[in-house]
Amino acid sequence: MTAVGTVTELEVHDVRFPTSRRLDGSDAMNPDPDYSAAYLVLHTDGGPPGHGFCFTIGRGNEVMAAAIRALAPYVVGRPAPAGAAALAALHRDLTHDSQLRWLGPEKGVMQMAAGAVINAAWDLAAARAGLPVWEFLSGMTPAELVSLVDFRYVTDALTPDEALAILRTAEPGRAGRAARLRAEGYPAYTTSPGWLGYDDGKLVRLAKEAVADGFGQIKLKVGADLEEDKRRLRLAREAVGPGVRIAVDANQRWDVAEAVRWMTALAPFAPYWIEEPTSPDDVLGHAAVRSGQPVKVATGEHAANRVVFKQLLQAGAVDFVQIDAARVAGVNENLAILLLAAKYGVPVCPHAGGVGLCELVQHLAMFDYVAVSGSWDDRVIEYVDHLHEHFTDPVVVERGRYRAPSAPGFSARMEPESVAAHRFPDGPVWRGRPERPEQEVSR
Amino acid sequence: MTAVGTVTELEVHDVRFPTSRRLDGSDAMNPDPDYSAAYLVLHTDGGPPGHGFCFTIGRGNEVMAAAIRALAPYVVGRPAPAGAAALAALHRDLTHDSQLRWLGPEKGVMQMAAGAVINAAWDLAAARAGLPVWEFLSGMTPAELVSLVDFRYVTDALTPDEALAILRTAEPGRAGRAARLRAEGYPAYTTSPGWLGYDDGKLVRLAKEAVADGFGQIKLKVGADLEEDKRRLRLAREAVGPGVRIAVDANQRWDVAEAVRWMTALAPFAPYWIEEPTSPDDVLGHAAVRSGQPVKVATGEHAANRVVFKQLLQAGAVDFVQIDAARVAGVNENLAILLLAAKYGVPVCPHAGGVGLCELVQHLAMFDYVAVSGSWDDRVIEYVDHLHEHFTDPVVVERGRYRAPSAPGFSARMEPESVAAHRFPDGPVWRGRPERPEQEVSR
Repeated sequence: MTAVGTVTELEVHDVRFPTSRRLDGSDAMNPDPDYSAAYLVLHTDGGPPGHGFCFTIGRGNEVMAAAIRALAPYVVGRPAPAGAAALAALHRDLTHDSQLRWLGPEKGVMQMAAGAVINAAWDLAAARAGLPVWEFLSGMTPAELVSLVDFRYVTDALTPDEALAILRTAEPGRAGRAARLRAEGYPAYTTSPGWLGYDDGKLVRLAKEAVADGFGQIKLKVGADLEEDKRRLRLAREAVGPGVRIAVDANQRWDVAEAVRWMTALAPFAPYWIEEPTSPDDVLGHAAVRSGQPVKVATGEHAANRVVFKQLLQAGAVDFVQIDAARVAGVNENLAILLLAAKYGVPVCPHAGGVGLCELVQHLAMFDYVAVSGSWDDRVIEYVDHLHEHFTDPVVVERGRYRAPSAPGFSARMEPESVAAHRFPDGPVWRGRPERPEQEVSR
Repeated sequence: MTAVGTVTELEVHDVRFPTSRRLDGSDAMNPDPDYSAAYLVLHTDGGPPGHGFCFTIGRGNEVMAAAIRALAPYVVGRPAPAGAAALAALHRDLTHDSQLRWLGPEKGVMQMAAGAVINAAWDLAAARAGLPVWEFLSGMTPAELVSLVDFRYVTDALTPDEALAILRTAEPGRAGRAARLRAEGYPAYTTSPGWLGYDDGKLVRLAKEAVADGFGQIKLKVGADLEEDKRRLRLAREAVGPGVRIAVDANQRWDVAEAVRWMTALAPFAPYWIEEPTSPDDVLGHAAVRSGQPVKVATGEHAANRVVFKQLLQAGAVDFVQIDAARVAGVNENLAILLLAAKYGVPVCPHAGGVGLCELVQHLAMFDYVAVSGSWDDRVIEYVDHLHEHFTDPVVVERGRYRAPSAPGFSARMEPESVAAHRFPDGPVWRGRPERPEQEVSR
């Protein structure tokens, strides 16, 4: 835990992958995403750098890059963060600056930018400690972990003392669970078969491959057409057999009554959960959907911050909490959310996919297993099989499980060649194409 | 309603006023704001331009400017919007682009940027119609107004048919109320005395001036120190006498239990409402504060979108809905919020102040009176007496009331000299100062 050097530069790149050309990632709300990252490197004058990013689906990635740049004065010139105290202070400065706060508060572009910088600081600190982030976190004391959490606005649901008690309860079993995790890996499910733009043949083929690869759960995108959804669910069920769970994901497509109606119609196909049935801001709406139809409810990848998660739990609105590593204010805010979920006894099943989200979030789920919830029952990390080749420490998923990463850091470093090739708009992948990806504008 | 010309350019300026030098605008969360605007002009090849802006309090204003620039391709090249259909289509394109949506959805930086562009389009359309925006809106049919609203995610609280019924009920009285509004003006309250950074002498002097100026309500900032708050409330009450309402505003300072405790202690001083007791995202928290202590609850200036307002109303969390003209997606989304408030019978008391927020929001409150709620009982528009001199059609507040604006447009145009002088970082006001306003960073 020795601080080495000072942060000298925050380098930012607008990196975009032309995924829309193959309809990877297509769903009821996102017909043609170009998976992108506003990627940053924290350079220091000694020791390894830190890497972080915001994930976007194309247009607006330059706004995220501008937001990250706006945070440079808060991190450049600091000692390279090494331990809990420095990482807590950085999180506080980035999320509670009195002027920047006006742009959220704690939501949207500025919160994602803060998350990217905070995650980069964790990458840097864990790299200096020579540990992957999940082990770096799992090696902290309960008191250190509590000191990392911003309890503002959540004490009506979780106090620091309650958080400490949760962490202390899990403490004795840490070593045993870490050993089991290294031996067995963490359960995963795959969304690769289920993109809405894929034809039936591709759906069936990929669903069968998922089962052969050892996955116990797959996920299908739904919400564009009810009869189509029934047909695709039937096809998927025939492909995977009765023993594999099929979750469905509406990507915020419905109003409350429509969600209830649609899922009542899909319930006979026994979907495992319905994900994002409606607006991610609609706590009361999710509660109404959960009580109005028989399928379990999952949400969280677009929940803006811990205050929204707190309410989802208080209102009994969700069966599964889906954290995202790059939507909220980094490791610190996700730690608050993991503790809230543990307090309410709701399993955390992280959202992943995109660019590098699998790489990041595996660390948080594994830390949750080792040191917070102490369980992986009913828990699975999403897995999508694309774009991992652009990372220097890509996830390894075998027999339906994430292998515990062992390289130091947050698995957040992109291959320099990938960054250079996909820089928007001047990288070779984009040069000669229209300056912006095509837009749908009604005139 | 004839379209004249095409939008040819979206011009953006980062404009900042050094208000922190005098502690104008200081409160428990915002000790030293530099009131700022990311200001835009929609130029056309015929007819008047449109003006709009996002309000910020300093740092990060350049991120807002970048977000507005990201929206240029959605508006440049369109016919200059003239009527409801074009204004509805623009709102839809700016808030539901499948890729940009990922950066919110519908919240924070991107939603404010969309709001600024949408409001500029309303300024342009009303200017072409030769009407102030409140009259332009009040001249639309109930069906046209309903067509402007995005009902996605709110139909469990308000259907298009219900909205139509609300507007039709108000329709017969429109002309009478418009005439009364022109004659009498709309009730206002003033926050000018209550900034936390002002000393007792300035507080008492400004409170007395407010009463002499005809205001029936003032507002004090609270939340930094309970004994100080009691003392200042006592001073203010002595200064204004028993007949003037004193609202208090905590600017999100408290957790739920603290808000209940603090306001229970302030209740003997009979504050008229407690504004922003806790996180603007905390619907359930506001409901708990409302039921846990005797003072009425107001919030909304930081509520991200119509989905949050919907829930505040569904949960019975607020006594007053405080719309902000520049936080949500422009006139269209505020129209949804006005209709929701009317459905639930909760009065709308707009947030204003900042840069140009009084100028914009007066139009929405007046339209609400004329054509939606049909009432100004228990309704007041916030008024703060600074920075109006930078607008070409500044608000006029006399004897505690906003005079109905008569100039065409949205009162959104800034004096070109003000824009040039306050451009950050290269305008004469900022040149020679540090590139960024001072930051508090804990190291």
